[in-house]
Amino acid sequence: MALIVQKYGGSSVADATGIKRVAKRVTEAKKAGHDVVVVVSAMGDTTDELIDLAQQVTPLPPQREMDILLTAGERISMSLLAMAINNLGVEAKSFTGQQAGVITDEVYGKARIIDVSPSRIRDTVARGEVAIVAGFQGVNPSTNDVTTLGRGGSDTTAVALAASLKADVCEIYTDVDGVFTADPRIVPNARKLDRIAYDEMLEMAASGAKVLVLRCVEYARRYGVPVHVRSSFSTHTGTLVTDEPDPSKDTTMEQPIIAGVAHDRSEAKITVVGVPDVPGKAARIFEVVAAAGVNIDMIVQNVSAAATGLTDISFTLPASDGATGTQALMAHQPDIGFHSLQYDDAIGKLSLIGAGMKSHPGVSARLFAALSEAGINIEMISTSEIRISVVTRADSLDDAVRAVHTAFELDSEQDEAVVYGGTGR
Amino acid sequence: MALIVQKYGGSSVADATGIKRVAKRVTEAKKAGHDVVVVVSAMGDTTDELIDLAQQVTPLPPQREMDILLTAGERISMSLLAMAINNLGVEAKSFTGQQAGVITDEVYGKARIIDVSPSRIRDTVARGEVAIVAGFQGVNPSTNDVTTLGRGGSDTTAVALAASLKADVCEIYTDVDGVFTADPRIVPNARKLDRIAYDEMLEMAASGAKVLVLRCVEYARRYGVPVHVRSSFSTHTGTLVTDEPDPSKDTTMEQPIIAGVAHDRSEAKITVVGVPDVPGKAARIFEVVAAAGVNIDMIVQNVSAAATGLTDISFTLPASDGATGTQALMAHQPDIGFHSLQYDDAIGKLSLIGAGMKSHPGVSARLFAALSEAGINIEMISTSEIRISVVTRADSLDDAVRAVHTAFELDSEQDEAVVYGGTGR
Repeated sequence: MALIVQKYGGSSVADATGIKRVAKRVTEAKKAGHDVVVVVSAMGDTTDELIDLAQQVTPLPPQREMDILLTAGERISMSLLAMAINNLGVEAKSFTGQQAGVITDEVYGKARIIDVSPSRIRDTVARGEVAIVAGFQGVNPSTNDVTTLGRGGSDTTAVALAASLKADVCEIYTDVDGVFTADPRIVPNARKLDRIAYDEMLEMAASGAKVLVLRCVEYARRYGVPVHVRSSFSTHTGTLVTDEPDPSKDTTMEQPIIAGVAHDRSEAKITVVGVPDVPGKAARIFEVVAAAGVNIDMIVQNVSAAATGLTDISFTLPASDGATGTQALMAHQPDIGFHSLQYDDAIGKLSLIGAGMKSHPGVSARLFAALSEAGINIEMISTSEIRISVVTRADSLDDAVRAVHTAFELDSEQDEAVVYGGTGR
Repeated sequence: MALIVQKYGGSSVADATGIKRVAKRVTEAKKAGHDVVVVVSAMGDTTDELIDLAQQVTPLPPQREMDILLTAGERISMSLLAMAINNLGVEAKSFTGQQAGVITDEVYGKARIIDVSPSRIRDTVARGEVAIVAGFQGVNPSTNDVTTLGRGGSDTTAVALAASLKADVCEIYTDVDGVFTADPRIVPNARKLDRIAYDEMLEMAASGAKVLVLRCVEYARRYGVPVHVRSSFSTHTGTLVTDEPDPSKDTTMEQPIIAGVAHDRSEAKITVVGVPDVPGKAARIFEVVAAAGVNIDMIVQNVSAAATGLTDISFTLPASDGATGTQALMAHQPDIGFHSLQYDDAIGKLSLIGAGMKSHPGVSARLFAALSEAGINIEMISTSEIRISVVTRADSLDDAVRAVHTAFELDSEQDEAVVYGGTGR
């Protein structure tokens, strides 16, 4: 008998039929002898509909009120799910984030969890009942006001609750079968991974893989919560995110070098042209950008042309911060003393991720050779211990992902039956 | 400068346009120098849609979960209204029933308010901001679970909050212009009352007038809260429910005898035929009905036919309790010893209400004469100090209301422009 935290996203509870299907799944785990805590997102498009209503009322809703509004979504789905489970003869009770003891900071709209005190959840489970918890929300204890956790918030709620309850596993139910070696919409013969280490999953999430958000994986790694990513539409085993070795496999055997290939189309590139090549100028550029609240990803400084004493510096940033970044730099053009800015949002980023690459020096060479053979130009490169990322033209990105996936022998023998779509929050 | 509690029903905030109109009205009161606390119901059909969703999931939703579900409705309307008011340049914050300190008992679905501790509302008003409070909901302090107050709950929230805050007036905004001498859908030249005493309003509400629910008026009377019932679609003065004399009128002048004519189509009549006319039998009948949880309204015992030693006893009850009442009696037929039951739900009740009738002995005679002249048969009669009620055939009720309204000179000189429709909760 285990304690399982299950999280169901908005697409799994989009309507009464979906809620009843989830209820059946929950009761099956309960009847198999497990203790079950369920975290649930808002139904289907509820959140978008509420945002739309707010925009009909005002272009600039106060964030405190926006959070109160949005948390109505989980209130509806959690109570309906509790009703549906009761209807199947299993006692269930629903709890808001506040009732479940999810304590956050006061940053409305993207609050961070600072503590979880789930005494009511523990009591409910101890009575043999199923506890349903609203995802995506918590309470700011200094005001007793409700807060929301931002994108991927329900996944984070589930992992935080699993950590606090010392659950045996946190099951994240979604509309895909698990974590794949690449996005199956781009690489049809991508393979589902049975296991992936936290660090690899972190790099995947940071590099554009959508299946889990970064903060959720960070939370899981910090507290050692095993996360099982699986489909709510099938009973297939999904992907286990854990650092524990697979007991079914001989651990003396060499593990695969590469976990997968992630891609990201959401970045843009700024090139600062004609920067005086003297100490401190590069630092000044990044100070200005950081002061504007923009996170920089990759950086390349060209070799200085000795004749002019000028150099070019390129960096990538989220395309959504493009305007902020360029405006901040232009405002400081006089004191930095560069010639001009170039802005380019037609870029794509490919990342090759695998803990095994630490001990395999040939990985970069094989990556560059694969891209070269496919006729794809590399514009920027960055590396970590377990990741190599390259920037290409946006319209070459899909070809690049397929070429690299094949070169590292990640293609499956046959196409797997996969369902892939966007996930909620 | 006054402290005003304003309550807006679901039809006033049915969509973004309605919410913006209410926001404008609130800011006008604020800009006129008043402190304003607003109680709001769920938008339009939200509650019905949520009930429908629950019924799609289970035929028997647990009431605790039903209350959690339904309170999502006010959460949406209150935050949207706060946004809309902020958009007009007036600071506003929304609060759930729990945050506003509305403490109830633990009877989910029809909880009663046992205390109101609105410290957050007081603080908000003291800062010069508008406080928006979710109507219809409170918190059960023994579990910290949300409760709902049942029909008319938002009106009750508003009056309870006004009492606790010692507000100068509680304005109930609805889709009618005020309290009328009769339902304008039946009597087109019914007059809007400028004032009505608590006792009269209580009798009106208990006798079928829909504009305010009984418990709300009871609360207002107990704490002496002046209630101003008015339309959210016009700026006309409505009806003030108060025991204070009207300062604009000469109080030595005689007040009108009659406040209005109420009607009720929701009752049914049970006649217990052939009851042995011995002491204790009538008591036994009403014990049985009360034990089944059914409230009895009017009672008539026929004169006993001396030859048989048998009598008939008729009483009225809510038609929705008809099946419960008849089943309870049939189960006790052997020990009570009656012959048979007759059930009749084609009845209507007319009530004439006015504090002035205490000192005018001719009121009953005038009522019976008016009905007789109109050819309407009276089946049952009951009276209180300030009310006379009669039961007629249901299909004679409208004619009866019109005849009585005219006989007591309640008709207005000209038709008033009135909007009349069902109110929400």
